[in-house]
Amino acid sequence: MSSGFEPRDPDYQQRVRESFARQGLLATFAAQLETIEPGVVEIHVPFSTGLTQQDNFFHAGVGIAALDSACGYAALSLMAPATRVLTVELKVNLLSPAVGDFLIARGEVVRPGRNLTVCRGDAYAASDDGSKHVATMLATMTGVAERNA
Amino acid sequence: MSSGFEPRDPDYQQRVRESFARQGLLATFAAQLETIEPGVVEIHVPFSTGLTQQDNFFHAGVGIAALDSACGYAALSLMAPATRVLTVELKVNLLSPAVGDFLIARGEVVRPGRNLTVCRGDAYAASDDGSKHVATMLATMTGVAERNA
Amino acid sequence: MSSGFEPRDPDYQQRVRESFARQGLLATFAAQLETIEPGVVEIHVPFSTGLTQQDNFFHAGVGIAALDSACGYAALSLMAPATRVLTVELKVNLLSPAVGDFLIARGEVVRPGRNLTVCRGDAYAASDDGSKHVATMLATMTGVAERNA
Amino acid sequence: MSSGFEPRDPDYQQRVRESFARQGLLATFAAQLETIEPGVVEIHVPFSTGLTQQDNFFHAGVGIAALDSACGYAALSLMAPATRVLTVELKVNLLSPAVGDFLIARGEVVRPGRNLTVCRGDAYAASDDGSKHVATMLATMTGVAERNA
Repeated sequence: MSSGFEPRDPDYQQRVRESFARQGLLATFAAQLETIEPGVVEIHVPFSTGLTQQDNFFHAGVGIAALDSACGYAALSLMAPATRVLTVELKVNLLSPAVGDFLIARGEVVRPGRNLTVCRGDAYAASDDGSKHVATMLATMTGVAERNA
Repeated sequence: MSSGFEPRDPDYQQRVRESFARQGLLATFAAQLETIEPGVVEIHVPFSTGLTQQDNFFHAGVGIAALDSACGYAALSLMAPATRVLTVELKVNLLSPAVGDFLIARGEVVRPGRNLTVCRGDAYAASDDGSKHVATMLATMTGVAERNA
Repeated sequence: MSSGFEPRDPDYQQRVRESFARQGLLATFAAQLETIEPGVVEIHVPFSTGLTQQDNFFHAGVGIAALDSACGYAALSLMAPATRVLTVELKVNLLSPAVGDFLIARGEVVRPGRNLTVCRGDAYAASDDGSKHVATMLATMTGVAERNA
Repeated sequence: MSSGFEPRDPDYQQRVRESFARQGLLATFAAQLETIEPGVVEIHVPFSTGLTQQDNFFHAGVGIAALDSACGYAALSLMAPATRVLTVELKVNLLSPAVGDFLIARGEVVRPGRNLTVCRGDAYAASDDGSKHVATMLATMTGVAERNA
């Protein structure tokens, strides 16, 4: 596979989809899961006025939440069955105003680990005439056993 | 004043309120400005199912967006008139699940600067039986001249 | 105790001193352990020309390494016996040039945890006529069992 | 050029070399400038017992200082003449113990800007039998006019 990672759970895509579907905030954002590969997840968020900052662009918080989720699910895609993912910490640099019809948030695993997984994320604001790199993230994720497992 | 900072714009509170009111995302969150002092801003966000993660707690993205705004407005409160604030970058550690009736996001200026202002933020999940420290942030803000100024 | 934390290992000071004494880089810096309390460690580094950046101030790397060690040992002071500490990640904002006769790096535990401990650190450049806040850090530490334990 | 960036100062390599040569800490580390391209700088640090942590590996502070310098000089390579570079902030994840004969710290510009330049850095511990990715950094740099310019 392109990412070079082997999933430990053959149902990793289903696991990511189920967790995604339970997130109220991502529904509020009308966010869509566009890519789920081992160690790589991409989430798209269409523009709407309920997601703006004071200049009517995407609020940085939307991009950060989408990147956090994309990184978290990229990490989860490599975790053992019956594990859920938590964000330990994240750091993000905002590179440009997020002006566009939709946001693309792509998370990738840099280093999977037994306890901790390091991910990077990049967000792009896209419209018909191209896309622009608007944010870059470095994040630490951890896996914990499912409560009902 | 308690924070020890002197605002350069006597209308700093009005400036923060006007910018806050233009943010679609904060309206989506039903966020409230609770405190505006020189170098200190506090924002409250009531719980709702549209703001949750997969376990029905506050999504980390809500706390991060609220902390980003609280830190940004804390920085703006010390900036010259006709300036607006942009987030350069932020880093946040998530300390506990954000379970509660509302989130309190408090931003404080650590070091104001001509070009860059360093802030820290702390978020608490609160309910009738107390509050819990759920996140801590370190962020860099910058001021740019208002477009129409 | 002032920090409000209870050490789990009564010999925490000895454990910190022994680990500190094994660090070649801290000897190169002529760094001194000045404070070891539960959850708080302070390290001092005297100025020397071997520790400078291009303007003959303390190199940021010296302050960052000292803060990393102060935060790591603050975390270690609260860990169980026969544990050693590793830095997961850190983020630091440099606030001012570090001009002075010595550097003070103070690390404090924000949130101790079973697997992960979150710390903050602050560095000051000090001389006879006072001290200046030159850096602030937010870091994540983890404990692992001693190899020979 | 491979990095895709155009330097604004034709003497950018000379400028980087001169600044590097004035850094006492990098001399203490016996660090070498190995690559200076537009937007990309690589620094190597040979192992010595004066650069170790408690397990006799490279101290994280060595890798962080080398990455900070590599990122700073990558940023400086794209800045206007008579500018010097300062680190605003950096965040680093430590991925593996830095065991090896030398450290390779590579800094690359992600986004050059008029006031702020965002860089990423990656460090590898290398020996005869290969190299290992030991740290990844995201950093913000700024340029200021030379004092004597």
